Amino acid sequence: MHKVANTVLPKAFSASGLSCGIKKSSRKDLGLLYSQLPCDCAGIFTANEVKAAPLIVCMRQLRKAAHGRAVIVNSGNANCFVEGGIEDALAVVNATAQELDVPAQSVFVASTGIIGKPLPVSKIIAALPALCEALATNKSSLNDFAQSILTTDTCKKIVSVRLKLKGKAVVITGFAKGAGMIYPQLQGESAHATMLVFIVTDANIQQQLLSSALAAAAENSFNRISIDGCMSTNDTVLVLANGAAGNARINKKDNNFKLFYQGLEQVCEILARKIVEDGEGATKLIEITIRNAKSSKEAKNAAKAVMNSDLFKTAMFGNNPNWGRIVAAIGAAGVALRPDKLTILFNERPVFDKGKLFAFSPEELKRSKTVYVDVNLYRGTFSHRVYTSDLTEDYIKINAAYN
Amino acid sequence: MHKVANTVLPKAFSASGLSCGIKKSSRKDLGLLYSQLPCDCAGIFTANEVKAAPLIVCMRQLRKAAHGRAVIVNSGNANCFVEGGIEDALAVVNATAQELDVPAQSVFVASTGIIGKPLPVSKIIAALPALCEALATNKSSLNDFAQSILTTDTCKKIVSVRLKLKGKAVVITGFAKGAGMIYPQLQGESAHATMLVFIVTDANIQQQLLSSALAAAAENSFNRISIDGCMSTNDTVLVLANGAAGNARINKKDNNFKLFYQGLEQVCEILARKIVEDGEGATKLIEITIRNAKSSKEAKNAAKAVMNSDLFKTAMFGNNPNWGRIVAAIGAAGVALRPDKLTILFNERPVFDKGKLFAFSPEELKRSKTVYVDVNLYRGTFSHRVYTSDLTEDYIKINAAYN
Repeated sequence: MHKVANTVLPKAFSASGLSCGIKKSSRKDLGLLYSQLPCDCAGIFTANEVKAAPLIVCMRQLRKAAHGRAVIVNSGNANCFVEGGIEDALAVVNATAQELDVPAQSVFVASTGIIGKPLPVSKIIAALPALCEALATNKSSLNDFAQSILTTDTCKKIVSVRLKLKGKAVVITGFAKGAGMIYPQLQGESAHATMLVFIVTDANIQQQLLSSALAAAAENSFNRISIDGCMSTNDTVLVLANGAAGNARINKKDNNFKLFYQGLEQVCEILARKIVEDGEGATKLIEITIRNAKSSKEAKNAAKAVMNSDLFKTAMFGNNPNWGRIVAAIGAAGVALRPDKLTILFNERPVFDKGKLFAFSPEELKRSKTVYVDVNLYRGTFSHRVYTSDLTEDYIKINAAYN
Repeated sequence: MHKVANTVLPKAFSASGLSCGIKKSSRKDLGLLYSQLPCDCAGIFTANEVKAAPLIVCMRQLRKAAHGRAVIVNSGNANCFVEGGIEDALAVVNATAQELDVPAQSVFVASTGIIGKPLPVSKIIAALPALCEALATNKSSLNDFAQSILTTDTCKKIVSVRLKLKGKAVVITGFAKGAGMIYPQLQGESAHATMLVFIVTDANIQQQLLSSALAAAAENSFNRISIDGCMSTNDTVLVLANGAAGNARINKKDNNFKLFYQGLEQVCEILARKIVEDGEGATKLIEITIRNAKSSKEAKNAAKAVMNSDLFKTAMFGNNPNWGRIVAAIGAAGVALRPDKLTILFNERPVFDKGKLFAFSPEELKRSKTVYVDVNLYRGTFSHRVYTSDLTEDYIKINAAYN
């Protein structure tokens, strides 16, 4: 584990965020990340067959293997499922590139908010001069950016990890937003609330290695979380590495790559947990581990079935140690459980052990901000861990609202 | 469509229901259906890999092709995932058979309630003499049975359909329970809340034909509903046909079979809708039709994705015509939608038509106890229709409760 530092921007990166009038409230809704140096970049996007326009544009930029310089992000509008959406996203990219005086293909774009309404491009373009002018490396700029990408989130989500690569100090800093419509299933080539993650680092690393590191780190973090089982059209993770740390360029899977990968995975894991902790209406983080499944697929299916069971998630909200709902969910996922071959632990203490029942106090669940659920299937050697939140009356209130 | 009659028991059937003390409240929790004549029987059960003990026992009885005489049902305990559950279910079957003086293999058994607690067999056996004594053909007995099988349901669910087979009057009467943990995926061989359906008819029909009629009718009814996307361990549908109507035995797929099938399907469809209408906390029935999909599988997948989207179901509770959540759900199910090839109607009026948006008043949704959602994909010729309920704060309250 690398050191989780005070949140800072890596060398040669700057950030800004402001309100350009997309959101009805006066909350910030436009953010910019900028690197003074060209960056190696990698991205990973939703597996949803409906992909919002900015994702299409980012995927094109990545295929061109262009060096990234900036990410422009708006919240309050998803630019999804509207005719002319790609043209709108490109207009934002081009105007940003012009304002920053960088090549258009070096600017990435992301959006989150309501589906089906045209992006208010003119509001964004009108705000670009002030946004670029505000770019800075201090804490308040970093916070402005982190705020500007939020929708139903109740708090900003930033993490910085520090590591050393042959004596050179490297920083990896990630920003995330997301609290609802969270069930990201990111894939290599591939969108109202949505998960957006932007990671910037001053490490010097070759693009293909950065890309493979991101894919693996996302699989072990963002692809293991769910708030409501609803996969968004806009999920995006982008990494920009500008090399300003001055480490010898990572160009093979050596120890330096491993150290960098650990840092990247740490950033992704911390952000993934922060997203679930801030789940719409959530009162608890629930960590579910399936052990000793017959296959990796069985472990994953069982874990995802429990993670997406509304009945189990509602029981957790009620501090109700209803392990029967775990059994029903795993059985529904096609795993044949037997009472004599199953152990379920809550917070490391058994509630069901090979046919025997154990009382578990609702009071203890009430005190637990994090609930650890551990399910041993005694069928093989494969494990899988996932994270979800409880399902609450506040989730219903937030999402029933007409807007 | 056959005539939906006042609810009655078909000829030579009787029913009863009472409280034997399984439920903490004094509500009825034990019910009995009895036929004076031996019945041809068919059953269909949950696809959950965890199947409660009474389902195992019923499947065995059906494999013996025994003639059915009775169904004994308890609510308040699922007899699921407990060691000795099958022995307990058999003890109930044997005691009931003895009390009714019928062969043990002619008695079916069903349970619904909490998972993981041993069935209070002695309470059931102690109540059997009174339960058999109470068997009667009148309306109040029929209502007693319908009440006795309920758990979180707010109302009993009974329907009777009348038809004529070559001049002979035939009645098909169905009883259902279920309001939560409702996403039945019934299969040929094969809780807490659970769907239980018992259908009795005085039609004379050969067992294999009855079985194939039931499989088809269930596919077009119960397998198209979801309240919370949670498949139960106890879902059971049983049909008993005693032949007392005196029609010429149906032994091939002729017109009489067709008439009978229509009646059976009608009973199943009406009960399926009643279950969704009584969904835990539900305020609306939502009928979702996917049209012009590329394949039957695509139509089904798209319909089920919308039916199981918590975000869409919560929007419906909020009278929020949020069609974007329909797009996200269908895209997540792997269907590549395009704005120029999609039309979405709410209550037969467009909200989205090939890129054009139309306002839809939340007030109209508020007035609609049933919302008709019609999605045209313009990709092929396949359709699928499903039924769900809205997701509400009351659903959370009901299922968060510790019990």
